[in-house]
Amino acid sequence: MSVVVRNAARADVELVEGFRQLGVATIHEALGRTGLLARRLRPIYRPAHVAGTALTCEVPPGDNWMLHVAVEVARPGDVLVVAPTSASSTGYFGELLAASLRAHGVAGLVIDAGVRDLAELTEMRFPVWSSAISAQGTVKETLGNVQTPIVCAGQPVRPGDIVVADDDGVVVVARTEAAEVLERAHARSREEAGKRKRLADGELGLDMYWMRERLAQRGLRYIDAAEQ
Amino acid sequence: MSVVVRNAARADVELVEGFRQLGVATIHEALGRTGLLARRLRPIYRPAHVAGTALTCEVPPGDNWMLHVAVEVARPGDVLVVAPTSASSTGYFGELLAASLRAHGVAGLVIDAGVRDLAELTEMRFPVWSSAISAQGTVKETLGNVQTPIVCAGQPVRPGDIVVADDDGVVVVARTEAAEVLERAHARSREEAGKRKRLADGELGLDMYWMRERLAQRGLRYIDAAEQ
Amino acid sequence: MSVVVRNAARADVELVEGFRQLGVATIHEALGRTGLLARRLRPIYRPAHVAGTALTCEVPPGDNWMLHVAVEVARPGDVLVVAPTSASSTGYFGELLAASLRAHGVAGLVIDAGVRDLAELTEMRFPVWSSAISAQGTVKETLGNVQTPIVCAGQPVRPGDIVVADDDGVVVVARTEAAEVLERAHARSREEAGKRKRLADGELGLDMYWMRERLAQRGLRYIDAAEQ
Amino acid sequence: MSVVVRNAARADVELVEGFRQLGVATIHEALGRTGLLARRLRPIYRPAHVAGTALTCEVPPGDNWMLHVAVEVARPGDVLVVAPTSASSTGYFGELLAASLRAHGVAGLVIDAGVRDLAELTEMRFPVWSSAISAQGTVKETLGNVQTPIVCAGQPVRPGDIVVADDDGVVVVARTEAAEVLERAHARSREEAGKRKRLADGELGLDMYWMRERLAQRGLRYIDAAEQ
Amino acid sequence: MSVVVRNAARADVELVEGFRQLGVATIHEALGRTGLLARRLRPIYRPAHVAGTALTCEVPPGDNWMLHVAVEVARPGDVLVVAPTSASSTGYFGELLAASLRAHGVAGLVIDAGVRDLAELTEMRFPVWSSAISAQGTVKETLGNVQTPIVCAGQPVRPGDIVVADDDGVVVVARTEAAEVLERAHARSREEAGKRKRLADGELGLDMYWMRERLAQRGLRYIDAAEQ
Amino acid sequence: MSVVVRNAARADVELVEGFRQLGVATIHEALGRTGLLARRLRPIYRPAHVAGTALTCEVPPGDNWMLHVAVEVARPGDVLVVAPTSASSTGYFGELLAASLRAHGVAGLVIDAGVRDLAELTEMRFPVWSSAISAQGTVKETLGNVQTPIVCAGQPVRPGDIVVADDDGVVVVARTEAAEVLERAHARSREEAGKRKRLADGELGLDMYWMRERLAQRGLRYIDAAEQ
Repeated sequence: MSVVVRNAARADVELVEGFRQLGVATIHEALGRTGLLARRLRPIYRPAHVAGTALTCEVPPGDNWMLHVAVEVARPGDVLVVAPTSASSTGYFGELLAASLRAHGVAGLVIDAGVRDLAELTEMRFPVWSSAISAQGTVKETLGNVQTPIVCAGQPVRPGDIVVADDDGVVVVARTEAAEVLERAHARSREEAGKRKRLADGELGLDMYWMRERLAQRGLRYIDAAEQ
Repeated sequence: MSVVVRNAARADVELVEGFRQLGVATIHEALGRTGLLARRLRPIYRPAHVAGTALTCEVPPGDNWMLHVAVEVARPGDVLVVAPTSASSTGYFGELLAASLRAHGVAGLVIDAGVRDLAELTEMRFPVWSSAISAQGTVKETLGNVQTPIVCAGQPVRPGDIVVADDDGVVVVARTEAAEVLERAHARSREEAGKRKRLADGELGLDMYWMRERLAQRGLRYIDAAEQ
Repeated sequence: MSVVVRNAARADVELVEGFRQLGVATIHEALGRTGLLARRLRPIYRPAHVAGTALTCEVPPGDNWMLHVAVEVARPGDVLVVAPTSASSTGYFGELLAASLRAHGVAGLVIDAGVRDLAELTEMRFPVWSSAISAQGTVKETLGNVQTPIVCAGQPVRPGDIVVADDDGVVVVARTEAAEVLERAHARSREEAGKRKRLADGELGLDMYWMRERLAQRGLRYIDAAEQ
Repeated sequence: MSVVVRNAARADVELVEGFRQLGVATIHEALGRTGLLARRLRPIYRPAHVAGTALTCEVPPGDNWMLHVAVEVARPGDVLVVAPTSASSTGYFGELLAASLRAHGVAGLVIDAGVRDLAELTEMRFPVWSSAISAQGTVKETLGNVQTPIVCAGQPVRPGDIVVADDDGVVVVARTEAAEVLERAHARSREEAGKRKRLADGELGLDMYWMRERLAQRGLRYIDAAEQ
Repeated sequence: MSVVVRNAARADVELVEGFRQLGVATIHEALGRTGLLARRLRPIYRPAHVAGTALTCEVPPGDNWMLHVAVEVARPGDVLVVAPTSASSTGYFGELLAASLRAHGVAGLVIDAGVRDLAELTEMRFPVWSSAISAQGTVKETLGNVQTPIVCAGQPVRPGDIVVADDDGVVVVARTEAAEVLERAHARSREEAGKRKRLADGELGLDMYWMRERLAQRGLRYIDAAEQ
Repeated sequence: MSVVVRNAARADVELVEGFRQLGVATIHEALGRTGLLARRLRPIYRPAHVAGTALTCEVPPGDNWMLHVAVEVARPGDVLVVAPTSASSTGYFGELLAASLRAHGVAGLVIDAGVRDLAELTEMRFPVWSSAISAQGTVKETLGNVQTPIVCAGQPVRPGDIVVADDDGVVVVARTEAAEVLERAHARSREEAGKRKRLADGELGLDMYWMRERLAQRGLRYIDAAEQ
């Protein structure tokens, strides 16, 4: 039973905009170290950075038919998130689909499978995170689902979740927790800015994070090379 | 018994020039989705794009002696295609061999093994597709073959076949079929240009490819998020 | 028992400077093809090239506490070399630690594990060779060692060894052999410059390296395509 | 926020018993080709076959503390399903935990990470499906969750789902759909028994599945070797 | 254009029988170290050993339709050799097809893709060499070829070639060279039997193979631990 | 410069005998979780268990010449430990060398490369831990070292170290620390026997290891499924 769910809720535009100012590592920390997709997803060019609402798409191995179906229900600001039902490195996506997605306002693609037309996608600056690069084409024979909950690269992704991707990887934030996570991530980001300055000025992490006592308690010993 | 075959036929220069205008994915489609080398072959810099006649070379694992032999029988417009007789990630090729190949007009290298001197090769803009990067050197102890039929990264390659490589991978076209394949690939390319324009203007693939009826026949259902 | 060794000897500054002029492949050859770290270590941006004295750090899997400890004993010109006690792809290192290392004069990082903040590290031009990229953070719970002999990516590295890394990989030279190796590597480099020129002028490696007789002895046969 | 959920519902005992008579491939087909965990999960000995109710456990990378927590809420007939929050090959599980699980009636273990004590586990005939074998131990420093929904090897698993594992892999069936799936799987199994007999008697699949017409429509041609 | 070639020539029965007495490593040596399929092909149970005539089958990724087509043209003594046109780990083959192949006298399967029903295949003692194990099923939508030349796991295989497989891997021998190769392989096997006896009696390979002089010429030095 | 070191010291026979009673995981724990070789080393048959003194051998990639050299300096009770200078999956070792090693009392082989003749080695019950299985043969062209310190699968191994291998992997113990490590490992083993009995009797690890308080301090919460 294959379905397309229309009119799924989208994430709040201002929240998405807020996440766009932050890196994946920071958001992942603000999530309590959850929500990170497997690191086999890599950007096809660097630097790349995108944030948007997840438009989910579940596809059979080696079959990209449902991507065309997904375009129709896309809205500006969506990020298309594609997961095959079993591992596939075939090239599901190229410049034609990118042109189509862009025409409908889709901001980028996250796919746990292969893509092709790298030169063209790079020139278009259409950001893509994929687990493979392959010129091998797909067929259009078997249905899948659009805008249903999926698992992509090891993480559950629901329609309407916020997806953020950069050079470090891809993270997903549940729509219902987005406001709270964004606040924590911004706080963390501000705190890191202060720490970065102090570290760049030469202050030691040992002092800044008050580590010395705990290290000693755990038994760390210092010896001089001359004494060895 | 190791042999070097001299005076192997080359592909027609105009055909090669024609293929140079086309991407690997397009040619692969025009071939009925055959001829694609395994996706472990990646360009050492991007973008990169080459087309030429295959100059084949079969080498022992970890031994690059035959590459020097191959240079002598190279002709302008050749692409050197190298396959080890068993899997090897050793660095068979670097800037000295690149200088030598370039002096003899060779347009690029495709090798199912390792290469080194990446910085220099990139600066020279000598295009290389390899399955590994390794500073580890090879020995020169055991013979192989030059200009005999080989299997490279899972595909049979015969001397004189046309090899095209770009950011998506590497494809090989039999010399005898090249004219016909080129025509089909150009037709496909022109057709894609038209489709790209329509998709970029917002037309849906669902309509452009007449998919709606077949999707419905297969049982695709649309539901509204509010009804779930 | 975890230790930090203070005041370990450093490599001679002029030797390090000498190695900085040379590529990893050349040095590896001058070492008799030893000293090369596993090729899973790749630079996070290219081109990249660094030479320095190894500041060694052994860490538990998924735990980066000791990196902060290492900063305190760092000296200008060091390259931090980090090895987990068992395989880990977690992101041990990001822009904050890079700011800290740079403030103390550390020239780069070699780590057989993951790093994050790629965009920031690339913008800072802080050179890093790692075996993984991951936004996943580490904990700070378990001790390790700083400035003790380690094995990193399959190679023994001692504090004070010279580490050189470029686009081809990473090589380590024992401090006691550095002068001799540098001389051999420079000799090789000069010799290669001469050969490069001759090859670029079209001379065949077959002639330049006197290979023809040995090839014939081994039984290489030449045939003409027309005779096949 | 780490939680242990007590008194989660279990699958019906008779349904579980029904699934125990069936292979993973058959159940996967009856599920419409969904529910299959990634094939990196392999049994530590063969043949092995288990069916039970999922007792879920989410663990930090390299930290097996929560496994001890899970034992307390285990019930006879459970299969422990363990997923690390990021990829880990460390040895989370050995004979002591197996003895403990068995004492509480747990029928087997499915873990997307490493295990150790293979000789002892094999001798005990405690069935384990894991993605790695490693003598490397874990720490007990960070919390996780027990009996919450998880993603294991790419599949969502909820407490109370039915898990079936055999030499071919691991499949999960939602508790609410179990009765219906079991019926379809049994029907399929009976149907396959009939087909197996006919095929073993020499009948061709071409005839039994009425394939000839469709193959011809798609354009399959038969030629004789003598005509080539 | 998809074809099935009927009445392809088979290898001589006595030659096949001769090869069945020999191991893959020995035959590979007798072939001058050629003909070995990639080592990702592993037997599903051990020990396993088969020799037969190659019945070739080229299949699309994730589509096993052509296997049913191949059964019809199988003859007793054939070994089915299956290669997907691009990499696939899907489960193409299980007990039903095994029952069918056995009914038509096929001696085993070599497939550069996935198989399932391991427990049943093992119990049937139907020998299979595959590159993956997966319960994931295939579709039957796209044609391929039967009894045409293919490349399987990196080696060209023609209908009628002799295929031998054991615990070490899979090797292919061209039909036209089979008699000569068999003779060399038998000679090598006899010679090894003599060597095995001498080595088992304690004679050193250094003496038996006359290695001492050549080792000394290359510069091997012996030192005593006490002198270090 | 290639050397063979004669008369290297061996580990104490009684210590080796003591380690033979213990599993790799237990010894690895007694070593403070050090000394474990990379988990890519797997036994060719199971169960397998060996302990002995390391006879070290460093070999070029794809070249097994030095194995013959190593046999001459082997002594009863040695375990041959072989490391290539760069990664290699070639089959370095088969039944002839096994017959030779056994004739000289060598108890087993640990090799970070490929082996062949699996059926014969298994029938001989000659225990082997390798990182690959391959029928592909090696050459005998380049020297290496015997009985010098090496790095095998990521661990330093010195001649005379004690090597223990079982189904879980391979661990190395420095000769000078062996007595102390053995004592700790035996203590641990005795302690585990007591724990195993208590766990098998149904006692919870939570109680036996006094974990409840620390879990609560870290914030673990228990909730009832009915309250969710």
